[in-house]
Amino acid sequence: MKAWIVAVGSELLTPFRVDTNSLAITERLNAIGCEVRRKVVVGDDVSELVTIFERGIGHVDVMVCTGGLGPTEDDITRDAVARVLKVPMDLDQGIVDGIRQRFERRGLTMPEINRRQGMVPRGATILENPRGTAPGLWIERQGTGIALLPGPPREMTPMLEALIAERLLPRSGGAGLFRRVLKITGRSESDVDARAQPLYGKWLTAPIPIAATILAVMGQIELHLTASAATRKEAETALESAVRELQDLLGPIIYSIDGRALEAVIGELLRSKRLTVSVAESCSGGLLASRITDVPGSSDYFDRGAVCYSNRAKEEWLGVPSELIASHGAVSEPVASAMAEGIADRAGSAIGIGITGIAGPGGGTPEKPVGTVAIAVRTPTAKQVRTFQFLGARDMVKFQSAQAAMNMLRLMLLDA
Amino acid sequence: MKAWIVAVGSELLTPFRVDTNSLAITERLNAIGCEVRRKVVVGDDVSELVTIFERGIGHVDVMVCTGGLGPTEDDITRDAVARVLKVPMDLDQGIVDGIRQRFERRGLTMPEINRRQGMVPRGATILENPRGTAPGLWIERQGTGIALLPGPPREMTPMLEALIAERLLPRSGGAGLFRRVLKITGRSESDVDARAQPLYGKWLTAPIPIAATILAVMGQIELHLTASAATRKEAETALESAVRELQDLLGPIIYSIDGRALEAVIGELLRSKRLTVSVAESCSGGLLASRITDVPGSSDYFDRGAVCYSNRAKEEWLGVPSELIASHGAVSEPVASAMAEGIADRAGSAIGIGITGIAGPGGGTPEKPVGTVAIAVRTPTAKQVRTFQFLGARDMVKFQSAQAAMNMLRLMLLDA
Repeated sequence: MKAWIVAVGSELLTPFRVDTNSLAITERLNAIGCEVRRKVVVGDDVSELVTIFERGIGHVDVMVCTGGLGPTEDDITRDAVARVLKVPMDLDQGIVDGIRQRFERRGLTMPEINRRQGMVPRGATILENPRGTAPGLWIERQGTGIALLPGPPREMTPMLEALIAERLLPRSGGAGLFRRVLKITGRSESDVDARAQPLYGKWLTAPIPIAATILAVMGQIELHLTASAATRKEAETALESAVRELQDLLGPIIYSIDGRALEAVIGELLRSKRLTVSVAESCSGGLLASRITDVPGSSDYFDRGAVCYSNRAKEEWLGVPSELIASHGAVSEPVASAMAEGIADRAGSAIGIGITGIAGPGGGTPEKPVGTVAIAVRTPTAKQVRTFQFLGARDMVKFQSAQAAMNMLRLMLLDA
Repeated sequence: MKAWIVAVGSELLTPFRVDTNSLAITERLNAIGCEVRRKVVVGDDVSELVTIFERGIGHVDVMVCTGGLGPTEDDITRDAVARVLKVPMDLDQGIVDGIRQRFERRGLTMPEINRRQGMVPRGATILENPRGTAPGLWIERQGTGIALLPGPPREMTPMLEALIAERLLPRSGGAGLFRRVLKITGRSESDVDARAQPLYGKWLTAPIPIAATILAVMGQIELHLTASAATRKEAETALESAVRELQDLLGPIIYSIDGRALEAVIGELLRSKRLTVSVAESCSGGLLASRITDVPGSSDYFDRGAVCYSNRAKEEWLGVPSELIASHGAVSEPVASAMAEGIADRAGSAIGIGITGIAGPGGGTPEKPVGTVAIAVRTPTAKQVRTFQFLGARDMVKFQSAQAAMNMLRLMLLDA
């Protein structure tokens, strides 16, 4: 089964608002094996919407359309459907009575304008809206089912559930799409893709086919695996084996096989090994501490963080010798090491992390350009320090610094 | 001028991701009087994309297409354009050399797969990408300009600016939509809306009409004013007077009249008053320090931050008396005050901020439920401490804590 999702509303064509209904709709459609092939957003414009319905009818199995069912002249979805299907609109007195009662229950009189919501293109079935005045509509033509749902998520959601269960599930073949998200850090997108490529072809032709999509986002790579299977159990088995193949191939650069963030992964490692961590940050400005403490329960293993922008703070709080800063510069591996040692010793934590670098845009030199970051990690059994050269703006350098520090810690804990 | 915005990428058809590039693109198009008539999202599927290009060519003035320009087989935008226009693809050696040099600057060898990014549909003009490997492309057919831009926002944004200035502005009629974003914190959306309502009607019927849209996002309210005018100058004059009316009406709860973030606003205040700040955080976990240091040049006024999750850290680093914690609890106004005092004194900063609270999901009690946060701000001339009750999940409590702390500081600095 193939679907289009159509969102109607001029506010969705402004710079302020994106359509998010389509996410929930996609999830529910995918789970019954219905693939979303296209998403379209149009304004309150009958002719635009008409051309979209025209294109979709006879081409996809279902079009789920949200919005444009309100009582005002801007609400043009009903009209567009009637025009495309060349059917008249009839007033459904039952709908109008229902809306009137809804107003009366709140002690209000129904405005006359709301009668518009009782207009139904001939041949359409009414979908109940338990949470609002605008009923939904369902109409079929040339093998395509068109569902019209209201835009507000709290009204749309229960109607979507009913639509799936009563109208779409019986049409679906039973097979559904199921997903796993793997996350990788410390490698380039093209490097990961080149190495994993041989697996993709094999998966696509497997009895339970799996499609892979690679996605590079700030400082990390996501690999989305989508299995198409009749049942969740079959899909999970196939996905599990695909994940294992990737792990065998790529090794520990995969830090998450269930979509979890890196801070959640290291939190789990620290908790299982009963280790505590404290961090000393310069260029990352507290972002590492903030990400570590984004994880619920992180107070169990996170003791403290020091954001030391000034050299004096590095000396006073972390005991970094001023001679070290004078001879190597504040951005250097010896200083990063001293910061990691200093914070661990002062906090009495098992693990200390030190980050010092140049986040930019100012402060770079020919020897140490913007993006130069030294990171040290000290665990009870090992110590590592590395210098990175990150690209991108200030926020990117901060993010990649925190990411790289957590990844160093993760790999050291896996080795330990 | 009419435009379509097309986003390409199978990840944008999953339940996990929405296209947000289209927001920035819409804003820039609107500013040159170009109306967005439709937004479309398609997967990495040549035939789907081909049908969209086919429909748009000769129908709209411009199609701005993002994504699908990477080096992998999934990246099909170039192929789709070549197929629609029935032109061959040529390898542009200049692009390949540029990509190779980019890799070499980072000490890496260009993977062979990246040569794909040098393939150019014949007749297309290359749009420089200063921040990534994928160049953009521009091609015209039947009065429609097709712009292909990469998907990552940091690469796309500067290329969009160049596209607008060099190719679209000369085609536009001149009249455009111009916007101002005001930001407000510490009030509810409906409160702000009710107070500002009388202005809206007046603005809409003014010679240069202004439309207002209110938008509530995490811990702050945005008020978007959109003026429709023939020139930027006329629009700016009308917007400036509307902003002043709002400021007269709402007072200092408006913290930004130019879209700047709160951290940038307090940075400006601190710099102009030559004051330094240090922060002591418990429940916000370093987020306040991280946001303050997101601002370029913040090292001029930010000295240090302490993330003290443990009571011991609060005592050792900030000198919070253990009796104070014992008698009032770690989450209390006296402890927040002692944290603010302690960090300012130890850092020798003019200003100290202390935050202590319960971010959740655990740790709440009937007297101090999750979301209870005490915040203290000490400046050279004043001291304030307040207790907030924030709603929402852990990340929301962290964000609102940092937001409230910065807003307290802002209001105190305005008063001083």
